[in-house]
Amino acid sequence: MVMDNRRPYLPSSPLLFWTCSLLLGCECVSTQRDVAKEVASYTDVANQIIKLVLSGPAQKRSYQRLANFTDTIGNRVSGSHNLELAIKYMYHAMSEDGLDVHLEPAKIPHWVRGEEGAEMILPRPKRLAMLGLGSSVGTPPEGIEAEVVVVSSFEDLKSRAGNVSGRIVVFNQPFVSYSETVAYRAFGASEAAKLGAVAALIRSVTPFSINSPHTGWQDYQEGVTRIPAACITVEDAQLMSRMAGRGQRVVVRVTMGAKTLPDADSFNTVAEIQGWQHPEQVVLLSGHLDSWDVGQGAMDDGGGAIISWEALSIIKDLGLRPRRTMRAVLWTAEEQGGVGAQQYYDQHKVNMSNYDLVMESDLGTFAPVALQFTGSQAAQKVMQEVVKLLAPIMNTTRLEPQAEGTDIGPWMQAGVPGASLHVQDSRYFWFHHSEGDTMSVQSPGDMDRCSALWAVVAYVVADLQDMLPR
Amino acid sequence: MVMDNRRPYLPSSPLLFWTCSLLLGCECVSTQRDVAKEVASYTDVANQIIKLVLSGPAQKRSYQRLANFTDTIGNRVSGSHNLELAIKYMYHAMSEDGLDVHLEPAKIPHWVRGEEGAEMILPRPKRLAMLGLGSSVGTPPEGIEAEVVVVSSFEDLKSRAGNVSGRIVVFNQPFVSYSETVAYRAFGASEAAKLGAVAALIRSVTPFSINSPHTGWQDYQEGVTRIPAACITVEDAQLMSRMAGRGQRVVVRVTMGAKTLPDADSFNTVAEIQGWQHPEQVVLLSGHLDSWDVGQGAMDDGGGAIISWEALSIIKDLGLRPRRTMRAVLWTAEEQGGVGAQQYYDQHKVNMSNYDLVMESDLGTFAPVALQFTGSQAAQKVMQEVVKLLAPIMNTTRLEPQAEGTDIGPWMQAGVPGASLHVQDSRYFWFHHSEGDTMSVQSPGDMDRCSALWAVVAYVVADLQDMLPR
Repeated sequence: MVMDNRRPYLPSSPLLFWTCSLLLGCECVSTQRDVAKEVASYTDVANQIIKLVLSGPAQKRSYQRLANFTDTIGNRVSGSHNLELAIKYMYHAMSEDGLDVHLEPAKIPHWVRGEEGAEMILPRPKRLAMLGLGSSVGTPPEGIEAEVVVVSSFEDLKSRAGNVSGRIVVFNQPFVSYSETVAYRAFGASEAAKLGAVAALIRSVTPFSINSPHTGWQDYQEGVTRIPAACITVEDAQLMSRMAGRGQRVVVRVTMGAKTLPDADSFNTVAEIQGWQHPEQVVLLSGHLDSWDVGQGAMDDGGGAIISWEALSIIKDLGLRPRRTMRAVLWTAEEQGGVGAQQYYDQHKVNMSNYDLVMESDLGTFAPVALQFTGSQAAQKVMQEVVKLLAPIMNTTRLEPQAEGTDIGPWMQAGVPGASLHVQDSRYFWFHHSEGDTMSVQSPGDMDRCSALWAVVAYVVADLQDMLPR
Repeated sequence: MVMDNRRPYLPSSPLLFWTCSLLLGCECVSTQRDVAKEVASYTDVANQIIKLVLSGPAQKRSYQRLANFTDTIGNRVSGSHNLELAIKYMYHAMSEDGLDVHLEPAKIPHWVRGEEGAEMILPRPKRLAMLGLGSSVGTPPEGIEAEVVVVSSFEDLKSRAGNVSGRIVVFNQPFVSYSETVAYRAFGASEAAKLGAVAALIRSVTPFSINSPHTGWQDYQEGVTRIPAACITVEDAQLMSRMAGRGQRVVVRVTMGAKTLPDADSFNTVAEIQGWQHPEQVVLLSGHLDSWDVGQGAMDDGGGAIISWEALSIIKDLGLRPRRTMRAVLWTAEEQGGVGAQQYYDQHKVNMSNYDLVMESDLGTFAPVALQFTGSQAAQKVMQEVVKLLAPIMNTTRLEPQAEGTDIGPWMQAGVPGASLHVQDSRYFWFHHSEGDTMSVQSPGDMDRCSALWAVVAYVVADLQDMLPR
């Protein structure tokens, strides 16, 4: 990263202009500075950003960019040709937008779904909508046909231990919350295999369904037989549960062509506006570019990727340039466990002290309701001031504890402040990892508000005299 | 219909007992009777019904019966083997329940879906979820591949008249209401064919989608070329609309094995409790037994059929017997335009003067919020009193104008009073005619309330001294 010799932007706020002129390079005075006043001096800039996006020339641009991108590429699972196309697309789009863009290599998993299907044979024939789970092995070409044992929990599974061998386990666990219930998708196959099951069919992890199967990653346990694992719909899991509850013999055939190929070459896509004063210091904004191989990956996480790009566009459009570098990173292979982000971390952690704030949007780009933040009490004080600038966007200035984001997790665990977007996401898991994750769930107005918020937070933090205190 | 020689049930209300004993056979006094008082005298009986269903031995029975039925049979489209099985199932189940059951023959349409599928070829390959529409012709075996013209309304279609020939018309009409928007599903193909289109793909008629296609009947216009017609998802219609809006050439291939076979033999399934005083006079309760060939047909209209049976069971369980006959009719081939019901009407209309009230539940068996009623002002006055008995079920005693129901339409048009169930149906069209119409959308408590309401209304009307005034 080299110093940029373009003339620094001088903020329009008189206070800041004075502060900048007077104190430039004099670090010792910084501790006495009134952070509240300093942040408040960005009110005009924040309002310019908000105006540009909510009612100015950038209005609906986030939505248009996301639509152009996901309509053109479609979904883009780790290792796929579509993901390569997506990276090329974003590299060119962000370059044409006038940003400094480069690609950073990463090795990523390459699991392919292949042909797949499931059907109930007894007590009556019925096609079962299903989606194999990422990392699952396939079945023999003729499929696996076996009697089903339906369980409602891991405890229930154990209580039927003598009845599982040679069977297909159907997990019909109720949806409690994603974070709690996803354990069945993640670990169901190995837990069933320990008792001799030949396959696992897991009720999709969603609070609502229109016979919609949801995919996702699953983890085999070391030393346990790898059996095929797929998600079926809430409806079919409940159907088989009712049938088994009546003492009926339920037989299912599942066929999966799934296999894992050698790791693929991929890239994290990085675009930035270099800081005029501390180009080596970074505010990182991010979303992940990969998705599952269903739907359009618009919500998870095209939106997060696009608003991270958009935030940089907005700052550039306004002719702003922060003290520190604003860097948008579009991660690769998040869905396989933050694989691209982990490699970025491993490569860049040597510069950890220069990471001011890491931001990720991966919970949807619906109407924003709060900024989530992880950092020291001192950093929280600063961010409490920053969110006050967001009132015109959210009608609230809520700062919530605990930022979320698989990809920024390593940084936050190492003590770097992190931020994420809390949005009105009551329907997020209705669409998550399903064919329903499309542009139809996105709204231009909501995306504008997310982009404006993202730009204000990132720019102000990147431009404050001091980095956020650890 | 012959007189039943079982001893008539004498209601527990002293007023009624007196009235019955004193006035039996003396029609001339009836005009002086105070209907409000007479109906109010059924409060105890109504509460017995409600208690039996909401907290007594009949609790959850409607749901269990519907689950047993739809889990066992699955969906049951007109002309299918499943529909035959469904009729046999209900004949036996209602007979075992101790009701008088018989079947009345009807000839019904026999349309079969066959293998079908659609895919976008350009600008990028994508599978399109679709469901062919009832009565549609099929495509040649290799399918129909053509460029798409996307329209948002019939007016929009006409404005592009010069651009339709040889194309597949995609109707991307917004959802306004089912009754308004269904015109695109019903008439879209013929309107497109008039301008030379080779197929019509219509956005599913639903306000909400998780990439869910919805089927339904469509009508070819006489003298217009019959082109294949199918519904695609809201998401895919919007996707192609955005693509076309960008000037992109969109090419789709649709393949449908649909065909219409000769009409099939079927039956309306009729169960009854004969009236002790006027067995020839009838209160008819109904729902339709057929469904589309997707989902379980639990909501549309398994629930309506089951509560019509259940209402009779409840009356029987309480040892009640009304003056007039309570007749549950489970219609066949409603989805093809009330085909079974029309034949029943044609056969029974000669006895029209004996039809006291025709009831149908075909808008879901969710939480009831009102009784819908079509009848003279004098009849409305009576029904206003009857719905007062429903307060413990609905927390309201709302009587709304206009009963709805394809199958009871002919009777109502001929002047017979009609009643239907208004339920909390905000999500009804989310599932309607889709794979999402399963037991998972039903709740035992809501079904109990529908059954209790159905039983109270039918029994009280069937037992009043007089038929409802025309």
